[in-house]
Amino acid sequence: MAEQNLIEQLAGSARRAASILAQTRGEKRNAALLACAVAIRAHKAGLQAANEKDLAAAKGFALSEAMIDRLKLTDDRIESMADAMEQIAAQVDPVGRTIAAHNRPNGLRIEKRRVPIGVIGIIYESRPNVTADAAGLCLKAGNACILRGGKEAVNSNLAIASALREALSSQNLPEAAVTVIDKTDRAFVNDMARAEGLIDLIIPRGGKALIRAVTEAATVPVIKHYAGNCHIYVHGEADLEVAESITINAKCQRPGVCNAAETLLVDTAIAKQFLPRIIPALMDQGVELRCAKLTEDILPFAKGDSDKLKEATADDWGNEYLDLVLAVRVVESIDAAIEHINKYGSGHTDAIITRSMEAAEHFVAAVDSSSVMVNASTRFSDGGEYGLGAEVGISTDKLHARGPMGAEDLTTYKWIVTGNGHIRT
Amino acid sequence: MAEQNLIEQLAGSARRAASILAQTRGEKRNAALLACAVAIRAHKAGLQAANEKDLAAAKGFALSEAMIDRLKLTDDRIESMADAMEQIAAQVDPVGRTIAAHNRPNGLRIEKRRVPIGVIGIIYESRPNVTADAAGLCLKAGNACILRGGKEAVNSNLAIASALREALSSQNLPEAAVTVIDKTDRAFVNDMARAEGLIDLIIPRGGKALIRAVTEAATVPVIKHYAGNCHIYVHGEADLEVAESITINAKCQRPGVCNAAETLLVDTAIAKQFLPRIIPALMDQGVELRCAKLTEDILPFAKGDSDKLKEATADDWGNEYLDLVLAVRVVESIDAAIEHINKYGSGHTDAIITRSMEAAEHFVAAVDSSSVMVNASTRFSDGGEYGLGAEVGISTDKLHARGPMGAEDLTTYKWIVTGNGHIRT
Repeated sequence: MAEQNLIEQLAGSARRAASILAQTRGEKRNAALLACAVAIRAHKAGLQAANEKDLAAAKGFALSEAMIDRLKLTDDRIESMADAMEQIAAQVDPVGRTIAAHNRPNGLRIEKRRVPIGVIGIIYESRPNVTADAAGLCLKAGNACILRGGKEAVNSNLAIASALREALSSQNLPEAAVTVIDKTDRAFVNDMARAEGLIDLIIPRGGKALIRAVTEAATVPVIKHYAGNCHIYVHGEADLEVAESITINAKCQRPGVCNAAETLLVDTAIAKQFLPRIIPALMDQGVELRCAKLTEDILPFAKGDSDKLKEATADDWGNEYLDLVLAVRVVESIDAAIEHINKYGSGHTDAIITRSMEAAEHFVAAVDSSSVMVNASTRFSDGGEYGLGAEVGISTDKLHARGPMGAEDLTTYKWIVTGNGHIRT
Repeated sequence: MAEQNLIEQLAGSARRAASILAQTRGEKRNAALLACAVAIRAHKAGLQAANEKDLAAAKGFALSEAMIDRLKLTDDRIESMADAMEQIAAQVDPVGRTIAAHNRPNGLRIEKRRVPIGVIGIIYESRPNVTADAAGLCLKAGNACILRGGKEAVNSNLAIASALREALSSQNLPEAAVTVIDKTDRAFVNDMARAEGLIDLIIPRGGKALIRAVTEAATVPVIKHYAGNCHIYVHGEADLEVAESITINAKCQRPGVCNAAETLLVDTAIAKQFLPRIIPALMDQGVELRCAKLTEDILPFAKGDSDKLKEATADDWGNEYLDLVLAVRVVESIDAAIEHINKYGSGHTDAIITRSMEAAEHFVAAVDSSSVMVNASTRFSDGGEYGLGAEVGISTDKLHARGPMGAEDLTTYKWIVTGNGHIRT
């Protein structure tokens, strides 16, 4: 009950801030973003002092060394946060643009205009820089945001928010445009997800369990950011050199991220040429392979050669290893590859390697994923790589925003109908 | 459990149908729509026989005479359903279009292409023609649909679906592209709303209780179609003739629909001129008025003059009468009008009557509604009037589709990234 009052109070202030932001010009929002960059740099010592508290507490949360490393606000990372604000300020204003306009035969003018969404709740578990990036993108698009990060970064997140609010205030914009909350329990996540009419959109970023909990509880619309089970399909007419370098890049360049490949599908037409080449190459990179039976038939030499070469089980196809592990399967045809991807994939990013335009077009049309790559690594599935500037995340939903989400995806539109006394008969 | 199997089975068939539809050309989908028109006309007698069963059962459901009238499949209404299919076929293909494309400095080609959403569940309570319209729009956009109508129209809905499936089959398209289910209980609505991964979108159309129940249960994304609490604000610089004719049109032309006006806000600057004019005019049309105190101060003559003139209570501002009843309030300023609308309105459609461009722009920017009218009746808020062709409904949500939804709003997009062996470094 007290929590419910808290969300009503926070979201009420955020709504008032959003309604002011919705009426600002792009220049004003950009000036605020530049002021945020200045404030982040000016408060470096304070941010690092707050970060020290989180780092001191990290051991108590049983964080791994890698997680502790990601938590650290180094000089470089603070500079990156400030730099991101400047980059967001430099982007085209996503708000106010007329998307479509026409005059009806009766003389009514119909216009569709981009406007901010309102109040956006972002629930995340990751690095403190997400606080700055998310706030910056919401501000760019004229939205107020309520940010609920993880307990391990709460002091850093609050300190970042404090710097950003000071910057907003210096530009005569309401501080409530950016709110970081220190309630890091699940109950508050539920309150946010159920704040219909107060919060317009919830974006959960993080583990599957968190996203599932938000989706189950939510009455507010949610754009889910599940991780990716990405595939590389090597078609019968693939350039094998391209296939090899893309497979290794997609698996090994950064295996812990959502656009890394998790399954390699090889067309039976080319399996005998490609597998004896790619399997040792992947093993050289330290990749553990989980191969379907058919693969072993084609590759008898590999059986038992290494503890890195295992037989795939049914569980492997749906798995996101986020590690140096790759499932491998030989498929009968392009349609078998498409069927496998649409059945086991997560609709994130899937690639075909082929020299056939026809095969590429068929794959592109039939694979039901947010990004489909032709002769390119799945690792390119990223807002920055697509030219969107900073990204809110990668939506695995189909509605509103699919794939990498930029500032424009944090807007909606309204219809503006202008007459001169028109009535309906 | 049995129900869960049923939804899995139905949605599984629908998904397979959707994946076939997603790869059809627009001409093929249009041919199927024209075949649907032919089938609706050819099955007129059968549709009317099924409709007779519903009409015979209607008394048992305690339907009002008006509801029974809306249930009737007259010759004209069957012709209208067929005609709607032809009109939908004539619309521009919403699928396959490139929305945006550019080349990155590294040579990667990035394209955003419109594609169908997949499987759409529509839950409705209204007239049997919704079955044909919804199926036609889903088919146009390359989606399969699962339609769950109300129990009072179940025989009519099943007969319409049977005609449409026959038409699909005649065009070598899967019958499972259109499924009407005869489970009219709430439990099945829940199963649909929770069929994540099977159904991509649920659109509930109907009463508030139904939409609320779907939203509470849903894990599948929902686009809500709440009814409208629409406002007319008469600004100080309004043309009073325009203000009068629009107010009467917005309230009286068809009071039972969601884009009818429910509250009249009159600027204090013009209240003494406008209220003595509009109040008798509305009362002549049989409208009951619920006036705030301030109005009575301005209009002492009216007090007690008629049982059609009552004092407004706090409940009136949020009410959707859907009847010849109008709440009336004098407001201090345009900002007070905006505040009232954003506080009590439902974000559907709100109008300003003014000769001031500046006031119009301020109102348009600040009112947070899907449609904002300037010197035009709220009754124009409609897909047909906006030139969208047939409409799925009017979304009161902000995400994905806002306001009148046409066939294009039943699509999403995918990113297509083409390289020549690009890897990320």
